[in-house]
Amino acid sequence: MSLIVAIDIGGTQLRVAVYPLSGNRPLRVQKTATRDIEEGAYERLIDLIDSVWPKDERVEAISVACPGPTNPYTGVIISTPNIPAWINFPLAELLSKHYGVPAFLGNDANLAALGEWKYGAGQGHHDLLYLTISTGIGGGVISSDMLITGWHGLATELGHVTVLPGGPVCSCGVRGHLEAVASGPAIGRYVSEQIAAGRRSSLEQGTNLTAHDVAEAARLGDDLAKEAYARAGGFIGQALSDFLHVFNPSIVIFGGGVSRAGSLILEPIRESMKLNIMNPSYMDGLELVTVKLGDEAGLLGALAQAHIRLAETK
Amino acid sequence: MSLIVAIDIGGTQLRVAVYPLSGNRPLRVQKTATRDIEEGAYERLIDLIDSVWPKDERVEAISVACPGPTNPYTGVIISTPNIPAWINFPLAELLSKHYGVPAFLGNDANLAALGEWKYGAGQGHHDLLYLTISTGIGGGVISSDMLITGWHGLATELGHVTVLPGGPVCSCGVRGHLEAVASGPAIGRYVSEQIAAGRRSSLEQGTNLTAHDVAEAARLGDDLAKEAYARAGGFIGQALSDFLHVFNPSIVIFGGGVSRAGSLILEPIRESMKLNIMNPSYMDGLELVTVKLGDEAGLLGALAQAHIRLAETK
Repeated sequence: MSLIVAIDIGGTQLRVAVYPLSGNRPLRVQKTATRDIEEGAYERLIDLIDSVWPKDERVEAISVACPGPTNPYTGVIISTPNIPAWINFPLAELLSKHYGVPAFLGNDANLAALGEWKYGAGQGHHDLLYLTISTGIGGGVISSDMLITGWHGLATELGHVTVLPGGPVCSCGVRGHLEAVASGPAIGRYVSEQIAAGRRSSLEQGTNLTAHDVAEAARLGDDLAKEAYARAGGFIGQALSDFLHVFNPSIVIFGGGVSRAGSLILEPIRESMKLNIMNPSYMDGLELVTVKLGDEAGLLGALAQAHIRLAETK
Repeated sequence: MSLIVAIDIGGTQLRVAVYPLSGNRPLRVQKTATRDIEEGAYERLIDLIDSVWPKDERVEAISVACPGPTNPYTGVIISTPNIPAWINFPLAELLSKHYGVPAFLGNDANLAALGEWKYGAGQGHHDLLYLTISTGIGGGVISSDMLITGWHGLATELGHVTVLPGGPVCSCGVRGHLEAVASGPAIGRYVSEQIAAGRRSSLEQGTNLTAHDVAEAARLGDDLAKEAYARAGGFIGQALSDFLHVFNPSIVIFGGGVSRAGSLILEPIRESMKLNIMNPSYMDGLELVTVKLGDEAGLLGALAQAHIRLAETK
């Protein structure tokens, strides 16, 4: 049997899985905590791959999902928050040489979009937008059955669009990006700031209020907590309206921890979209859903990437 | 010889041109003022096509560029500012039946992008962004050699993204869109408003100051006029930075009357991009240029569309 080896370099777990060439159920999976491989990361990744590498069967390709920026054309990780030592690290080339098979690399959010499209909530759609809202905000876009990657593979940084000019400084250094006002940390920070400014809330002011804390307080009726989600949802709906005008997708798939807050965030998003969409045609029949693949998105996205890249090289 | 008949339904002129299947120099061109065909528009368009239709040679396809919204998959004009009577008008189907050849329809800004990519300033690029700034703001995007159209062909409405939340109402009805603060009329309106509010300027307050009037005053040293262009350029640079993060193109091509103001608008755009780009990689080697095709963009875009669509159906 021919096989694909998929790797997901996640923030918490590093996973390696072996899939049959046709099919999306893994034959073998190995996981380790990402922090366990930070020292000598590459060698420990090789050990992990070796532990699942088939003895007698043929591996057609290795395919890696990794937070970026990454360059899918050269297979180089420019930098990745999960393994800080990897700067301009030619992971695909190293793996390809080591194992003697083609190796592919993709941005994890882009590949999650690809995974949801091929195996998850987006099956059957040709134009899909995936938005993940958690510590950061990222995304991926499929247009006419093609993943948008751009010149150097840096496209669809959907959290890095300006929604509040002059607003808070984003993790990237630019003011007023979507990520700076609507990510999980931004939701927690907004509540802390409002309490510091004298607003009342059931949440004691902590230096590290999480979006999860705020969601719990909102469910118990805390007005400031509800407002914090409504505000974030308003910005997401504004950006999403722009994305609809730019990509005109038939489905929007929400992922990430913040989207698990359900109607607390999704209702304000919908309300904001009603205000910001230029023409009802963009919303007619548009599906707004949450992810189906969950933790498997990275591996399945890497698997989908392997199929696409192998087909291109044939 | 096999031929393509290309049609450009422009705001001022309606043009019909006959091209050889290989090559981009028209064998015959006919033009008429668009206002002359508003009455009985379809019949008059047919007359115009008849006047160039070859007697003995084979026409492979008819291809039409028209301001939208248009649906390139169904060939239906949803509505078009240039011929208001055409509402949900199945132009491609009508032409195809009348002439017995395939007929294709595309949004004029999208096709201008396609024309510049295939025959103009964008030749050799795989990832291109075209932004036209005139009465409205529109655009088109090529990603990995593919024109982005979206589910219903409504994608890349690049003038309809929010750059100033709560700002002036856009032609589409939404507040704060790029088109509402940086189009030609928006530049003229800003100056009029500032004069009405007491600002001094060499421009007498007119109800209909054009971007061209403002550009002339700016070149003569008028501070308010210069500020109006700097402000518009600032917003364009902000939106363009978002577009770079979203599409990561290797070239940006500016079209439309406002972009002919040269450094008056392009310098503020560059300055704003420096502030708003999240990572220098997006700018490294990026070309910022103006259009090459000028008035021929619509016809040549339609020609390019015909080649692509014919190849798809083979």
